Amino acid sequence: MVLEKINYPSDLKNLNIEEMNTLSDEMRDLIIKKVNSTGGHLGPNLGIIEATVALHYVFNSPVDKIIYDVSHQCYPHKILTGRKEGFTDSDKYHIYTGYTAPEESVHDIFKVGHTSTSVSLAVGAAKARDLKGETGNVIALIGDGSLSGGEAYEGFNNAAVLGSNIIIVVNDNDMSIAENQGGLYQNLKLLRDTQGKAESNFFKTLGFDYYYVGEGNNVEKLIETFKKVKDLNHPVVVHIHTVKGLGLAAAEQDKEAFHWILPHTLDKKEDVKSVFTESYESVTTDYILKKAEKDSSIIAISPATPGAYGFTREFRNKLGKQYTDVGIAEEHATAYASAMAKCGAKPILAILSSFVQRTYDQLSQDLCLNNSPASILVYWGALSSGDATHLGSFDIPLMSNIPNLVYLAPACKEEYLKMLDWSVEQNDYPVAIRVPFGQFVSTGVEDKTDYSQLNKYKVEEEGSEVAIIALGSFFKLGKEVREYMKDKLGINATLINPKFITGIDEKLLESLKDSHKLVITLEDGILDGGFGEKIARFYGNSDIKVLNFGGLKEFTDRVPLDELYQRYHLTKELITQDTAECLSLASVK
Amino acid sequence: MVLEKINYPSDLKNLNIEEMNTLSDEMRDLIIKKVNSTGGHLGPNLGIIEATVALHYVFNSPVDKIIYDVSHQCYPHKILTGRKEGFTDSDKYHIYTGYTAPEESVHDIFKVGHTSTSVSLAVGAAKARDLKGETGNVIALIGDGSLSGGEAYEGFNNAAVLGSNIIIVVNDNDMSIAENQGGLYQNLKLLRDTQGKAESNFFKTLGFDYYYVGEGNNVEKLIETFKKVKDLNHPVVVHIHTVKGLGLAAAEQDKEAFHWILPHTLDKKEDVKSVFTESYESVTTDYILKKAEKDSSIIAISPATPGAYGFTREFRNKLGKQYTDVGIAEEHATAYASAMAKCGAKPILAILSSFVQRTYDQLSQDLCLNNSPASILVYWGALSSGDATHLGSFDIPLMSNIPNLVYLAPACKEEYLKMLDWSVEQNDYPVAIRVPFGQFVSTGVEDKTDYSQLNKYKVEEEGSEVAIIALGSFFKLGKEVREYMKDKLGINATLINPKFITGIDEKLLESLKDSHKLVITLEDGILDGGFGEKIARFYGNSDIKVLNFGGLKEFTDRVPLDELYQRYHLTKELITQDTAECLSLASVK
Repeated sequence: MVLEKINYPSDLKNLNIEEMNTLSDEMRDLIIKKVNSTGGHLGPNLGIIEATVALHYVFNSPVDKIIYDVSHQCYPHKILTGRKEGFTDSDKYHIYTGYTAPEESVHDIFKVGHTSTSVSLAVGAAKARDLKGETGNVIALIGDGSLSGGEAYEGFNNAAVLGSNIIIVVNDNDMSIAENQGGLYQNLKLLRDTQGKAESNFFKTLGFDYYYVGEGNNVEKLIETFKKVKDLNHPVVVHIHTVKGLGLAAAEQDKEAFHWILPHTLDKKEDVKSVFTESYESVTTDYILKKAEKDSSIIAISPATPGAYGFTREFRNKLGKQYTDVGIAEEHATAYASAMAKCGAKPILAILSSFVQRTYDQLSQDLCLNNSPASILVYWGALSSGDATHLGSFDIPLMSNIPNLVYLAPACKEEYLKMLDWSVEQNDYPVAIRVPFGQFVSTGVEDKTDYSQLNKYKVEEEGSEVAIIALGSFFKLGKEVREYMKDKLGINATLINPKFITGIDEKLLESLKDSHKLVITLEDGILDGGFGEKIARFYGNSDIKVLNFGGLKEFTDRVPLDELYQRYHLTKELITQDTAECLSLASVK
Repeated sequence: MVLEKINYPSDLKNLNIEEMNTLSDEMRDLIIKKVNSTGGHLGPNLGIIEATVALHYVFNSPVDKIIYDVSHQCYPHKILTGRKEGFTDSDKYHIYTGYTAPEESVHDIFKVGHTSTSVSLAVGAAKARDLKGETGNVIALIGDGSLSGGEAYEGFNNAAVLGSNIIIVVNDNDMSIAENQGGLYQNLKLLRDTQGKAESNFFKTLGFDYYYVGEGNNVEKLIETFKKVKDLNHPVVVHIHTVKGLGLAAAEQDKEAFHWILPHTLDKKEDVKSVFTESYESVTTDYILKKAEKDSSIIAISPATPGAYGFTREFRNKLGKQYTDVGIAEEHATAYASAMAKCGAKPILAILSSFVQRTYDQLSQDLCLNNSPASILVYWGALSSGDATHLGSFDIPLMSNIPNLVYLAPACKEEYLKMLDWSVEQNDYPVAIRVPFGQFVSTGVEDKTDYSQLNKYKVEEEGSEVAIIALGSFFKLGKEVREYMKDKLGINATLINPKFITGIDEKLLESLKDSHKLVITLEDGILDGGFGEKIARFYGNSDIKVLNFGGLKEFTDRVPLDELYQRYHLTKELITQDTAECLSLASVK
């Protein structure tokens, strides 16, 4: 095995081409085995192996800085930079993140998990080098999917006038997460078809020196070109054409399905069909399809991650012109949806909580200031055990403090569908719905609420002394707390399903003052700037006490949910204990 | 006068070219007179008069939708769409906003004040038209300065594949607010130099049909081309070369100074030099210049609005390579600064509160998740009497709920400079400083605080019963309230300058419980998700009462500050009255 001899980039320098090809094959086998075991990004990493080997052969990391975009294609880089045990030893499969992480290695310059940032970061790294009088190459490695994001363009536009060394490697595998979207991709195709020789060249229009490598999975050809651009004193784009999923037939064929896989995907027999279970994703797509058939102005919009909300190929095909994937372009997605709603169509924009961060200004200016009646579905909004780069715990502070927005938190399927239909049919407000995360809940009881009566909370159980206001997916926890509290403290608490994140039901809150001493709030996200604090503010001038439960303001990194719930006191036992303390009751029975 | 006959676009249809030229001259005179009286955007409007006349002559607004970018170039459009009295009648100079506003006219499709959104909005309007089976042209009018923003590119990329009518008019006047920045502008120059004939064409690489009008202030030539592109069934770019400030010599010469002017700028004699007065802007530029001279890794960064923070041409020239204007590209600016700080340089990014909204994700991911020790100066963060599109009241909820950030609120020059120097010299945290807005305050007493002791509030006056926590520029109000309360209620309140927006001084807040019944918070921004709510949450489980004073969650539109302060009870009298009520004291003496 060649890999046995390789621990750090310096170990690559004496290999010949044949050895590097063998090394690439060995890395490919490792990555397939590891990712099939743990799940993770497969296709992007299989496509970039040879380029990673060639980059580390030609350049001298970390003096030369290789800066990853999204960084979900960094597995080969991790193998070559002191972390191969995370791929060779199944006991250590989980010790490294799936993204670049400076705390793991000096070869990782930034912690990156969102898209389209590498060029801007590289311009900053290069400018810092220049200001400090240092030397070395700065290399940004950006995938073609990331090119649809506006920040990438801002980076290119500024990189072009840097006036010193910066090398942008464009990894063109003709695929984003799903299909690539937008005019630029026609230019990439033209450049591929002409071996980079077409006069019409996006990168050259911005002023870049341009190199093309048609065989982007050929170590020798890559090395040849990387050597040419090394140490140049001006901005360069190296456009390499790679094959996403290379070396695994299934991944080469179905690039979208193998972009990111669940554990043991490759072990499954192909003819076993998964059993259908109803989910928030399935009821959403069912709703949209039915509605779209009757109303040609209904349109579903996705910024490049359709799989995350169950927008399957079949769903997309059925919708036809009533579906737009805008690519990784959340700003455009929000403005596009806002404009459509303002002009009388009925857009439903689906977006992940972590990525809604990428479009604050459009939410504020295009959507809310224009009071445009678009519908936004926010998925994966919850405290999570995921990577620090993809947390879903910040959307409430981010969105709920923007004027005019009606942000709703359903607690079950029936509420969710009623809210969704109300949102689509009304013309008065921008509406966002926090699609519940985790367990699917169906009460079987039709929701007949009129959501045009804004900020009307629902009292689910009448009680006294303590009131529990349990938001969205934490309504279930609220019910558990109520039962436990009754049992342990003998308190018959009032249980409230607020449904509206963006407003206060003043009348109800006022009425609680009569027979309650304490109000508890539960929310599935950070507390700072969130829902509970508004309740605390409301009761500030009264004798009612308030305890807010939710996450702390922190970036958690792959912390198991149970551990987070313990840390934040988000269990029936800890909440009941805190309640007893606050009310100076005898300790819990 | 031709204008006498013109009230609506339909009145234009029977004019001949000569009359339209006369009309353009009359509009030019009106705009100069009006803007010189009220202040406002001058250069952009003088440059776009002929194109506006030609657009309204060729197209049929509002069936054909003309969508403005930024919309600070909409004055000629307002004159031609039923609102000329706002320019002819000095008593009515203030009745219309300086931006497009659907509530004023059906010819204004969206309310727009931030940049780079027109193409995305136009794609949405066009798609709504197609889904509903309607007809008509959709025209986006985007200025060259707006082309540096990523959202514009996202819009172009998606517009190119719309597959139906959309016309993007690129108003190229070779100027942003200050100079244009970035690689794209070299391509625009090439296109101008070749009368649009160069093979290397940014717009064509994205797949657009492309038209060039070299004489962008020639009504006849414009009409000729607009007629050609009208009703086309595919995406088109019309690149028009106009002269910013046309018709006013001073504005043509100094395009930056005349982009936006104060009232009566044209009346001033040129040789009268304004008297120098110290300001937060002047002490900032002084600090940066001195520091930059000693340390070559200091760099000031501006996303296209240098004038707003006093980054004059002289200041920029002195800094040379230690200054970057990235263009209107806030996302890039934040990532760029983050990367530089992480790589050992000392970036100071200046940005307006309203525009910090455009870069939430980079603040979260590139800056804070990476714990990058960059310094960010947030200007104009305050409740304001400005247009709804440019409010500075949302930055505290937006920024302060992001983990790791240290967001500071100085109350005077001395604190500000100490914080700034601490921020620049430390390597542990991303730091933002909310530069005080309004009156300049200097105590003359050196601030010796060690700001590395995070979240340590300063007790300025010891007292009892009531504690006033007065943040940043509202510290002054806090002092006034204290005096007034002593006088009227006989309460000797504790006065606290919290300085840290992002954290709670738990020890101090805990200690207040002994001898205080009520804590008052004052902040110059909206309450929702802000500073005061965190204090309310802290005291939720105690007997201390809390009253939060600040703005409501709303988009206010040119409401005088006094009126806002009354509405939000932000006066010493109203705060004292609310205090008396909360404490059930006899009414104020």
